[in-house]
Amino acid sequence: MGGDIGARVMVAGAALARHRHEGFQFLFVGNETEIKEALKSHPNLSAASEILHAEDIVSGDAKPSQALRGSKKTSMGMAVGAVKSGEVSAAVSAGNTGALMAISKLALRTMAGIDRPALAALLPTMKDSDVVMLDLGANAECNSRNLVQFSVMGAAYSRIMHGFEKPTVKLLNIGTEDSKGTGALQVAADALKNSDGLAMDFQGFTEADKISTGEVDVIVTDGFSGNIALKALEGTARFVTDLLKRSFLSSLRSKIGFLISRPATELLREHLDPNNHNGAVFLGLNGVVVKSHGSADEKGVANAVEVAARLVEDSILERISEDLDKISSVTPLEAAAK
Amino acid sequence: MGGDIGARVMVAGAALARHRHEGFQFLFVGNETEIKEALKSHPNLSAASEILHAEDIVSGDAKPSQALRGSKKTSMGMAVGAVKSGEVSAAVSAGNTGALMAISKLALRTMAGIDRPALAALLPTMKDSDVVMLDLGANAECNSRNLVQFSVMGAAYSRIMHGFEKPTVKLLNIGTEDSKGTGALQVAADALKNSDGLAMDFQGFTEADKISTGEVDVIVTDGFSGNIALKALEGTARFVTDLLKRSFLSSLRSKIGFLISRPATELLREHLDPNNHNGAVFLGLNGVVVKSHGSADEKGVANAVEVAARLVEDSILERISEDLDKISSVTPLEAAAK
Repeated sequence: MGGDIGARVMVAGAALARHRHEGFQFLFVGNETEIKEALKSHPNLSAASEILHAEDIVSGDAKPSQALRGSKKTSMGMAVGAVKSGEVSAAVSAGNTGALMAISKLALRTMAGIDRPALAALLPTMKDSDVVMLDLGANAECNSRNLVQFSVMGAAYSRIMHGFEKPTVKLLNIGTEDSKGTGALQVAADALKNSDGLAMDFQGFTEADKISTGEVDVIVTDGFSGNIALKALEGTARFVTDLLKRSFLSSLRSKIGFLISRPATELLREHLDPNNHNGAVFLGLNGVVVKSHGSADEKGVANAVEVAARLVEDSILERISEDLDKISSVTPLEAAAK
Repeated sequence: MGGDIGARVMVAGAALARHRHEGFQFLFVGNETEIKEALKSHPNLSAASEILHAEDIVSGDAKPSQALRGSKKTSMGMAVGAVKSGEVSAAVSAGNTGALMAISKLALRTMAGIDRPALAALLPTMKDSDVVMLDLGANAECNSRNLVQFSVMGAAYSRIMHGFEKPTVKLLNIGTEDSKGTGALQVAADALKNSDGLAMDFQGFTEADKISTGEVDVIVTDGFSGNIALKALEGTARFVTDLLKRSFLSSLRSKIGFLISRPATELLREHLDPNNHNGAVFLGLNGVVVKSHGSADEKGVANAVEVAARLVEDSILERISEDLDKISSVTPLEAAAK
């Protein structure tokens, strides 16, 4: 029921995902009338779908604490509840991010060995593959333990989404020298450097101007800096494309040039289109919950559904656990706490 | 002597600034032979110039602690020393930022009422005027007191550069609701909200995707987040323009379109050109020190020189002091410490 458009685009996205993957089955949670109406446009989907009616919704501006109250009756709460009960393998929501995090954390609990879950997403780069970045805002303040755990979770996510055996991992910092940044970053870097046999290639620090170059597979940071970086990226991409549009409209000559070079600007739009990179994931919980962007279209929703399916099929939880075991057997993480 | 090009571009930039402002006088600090050679190309400048020979330079990769040792013999150390002695009104350097900060802090000391200086810069926006942003990396960790002081310094800088009587000021956060972000941010926001008579219009929190919209005149943050945001902006601007270039080269048709719309892309390049926004400033010291970008051309250097001159002419130090007095008479800042 969440997002800018609601049930209609979620059902259309599911239909698109189902078109690509015959085995997918859906439980739509929300207002039954709206969902039935939306399903009419997708007759092939109905056979693979069930509806779970929810009386209430979590509003877009509800605070996490508000969302937790009465969550048993909201579509978001009931969808996450279906993951908890095992009725479904994963939940996808386009609703309020903070509320989804709070509800998921309470219902699913964090995995053994993980102190706090993190929000991870795929961001576009100059290279062919996206970069995994986390935490993007779930935890405003993080200690070194959190950063080490986020690295393990991010690497597991990258192994599944990129298919690399040992993805490269770097911590976001304000310089690449060992002495840069906060104590938490330095302790986390030491802990990762001194762990053997991890399913990642830890390469130290990186800076925010390298996020889009694609020089690394996974970038790890605290939720405050991650959110700042993500929004700075979004804002600047919009800023530059708006400036470009304005420049193109500045004279008749450039208008003509724009029309002729349209395929080029379309290519740019396609590469930056958030719908092609949709599906932010809450990592570190006992279950798979994917956050679809509120403004995602059906292609974006289908992408989010596919991300959820891959994480389930490729056993994201087991992969995280395996690496956590290796870290704790090598490094006394307690000593690494800030 | 600093920056990618060294003495030649600094002298050329000074010549350009002098061409625009007849009253400017220069003391060039560095290798006398190189400076004399560079001055040959600018005969009109020589009459308004003196040279102070320095035996040594601070290298681009020197750590601040290294730069401090023997700084009496380096061009950077001697230039800042000339500000301290009152021989010059301001220093402009294109060298190592961390070293310049350390040397300036030690030589000039922080102003009364300021705990820590901050690095401020002007960034391009969708509107006609740039946004002032600080701290951009001088202080990796900040408490609420620092953030309040940065707000006062940023507002004073904006009053001089923008000419606004009461510039709008916001704190960078991961959401705009009062409850968002760290305790330091919340305490700082309260302190600014509850201060009367400040020469600023404090408007609460903003997010990183609003930096480039120009909706606010001054954005204040800690040095870690500020550096992350600044580098994310730079990296994304490069990413989008590179993608655009690549798209334009993807077919003959778009190549032709590109040639025709060249004035538009030139306009974009001009708007984003760092040389038009050059001149990062260390605020909060007993003297004016401006950091010119290492890759700035002569136009960029002239810009940095003009920023330095305006800060001196418009008495930046007095303006900061005035507002600090108002804050401390209204809010017990001690109570606002993190």
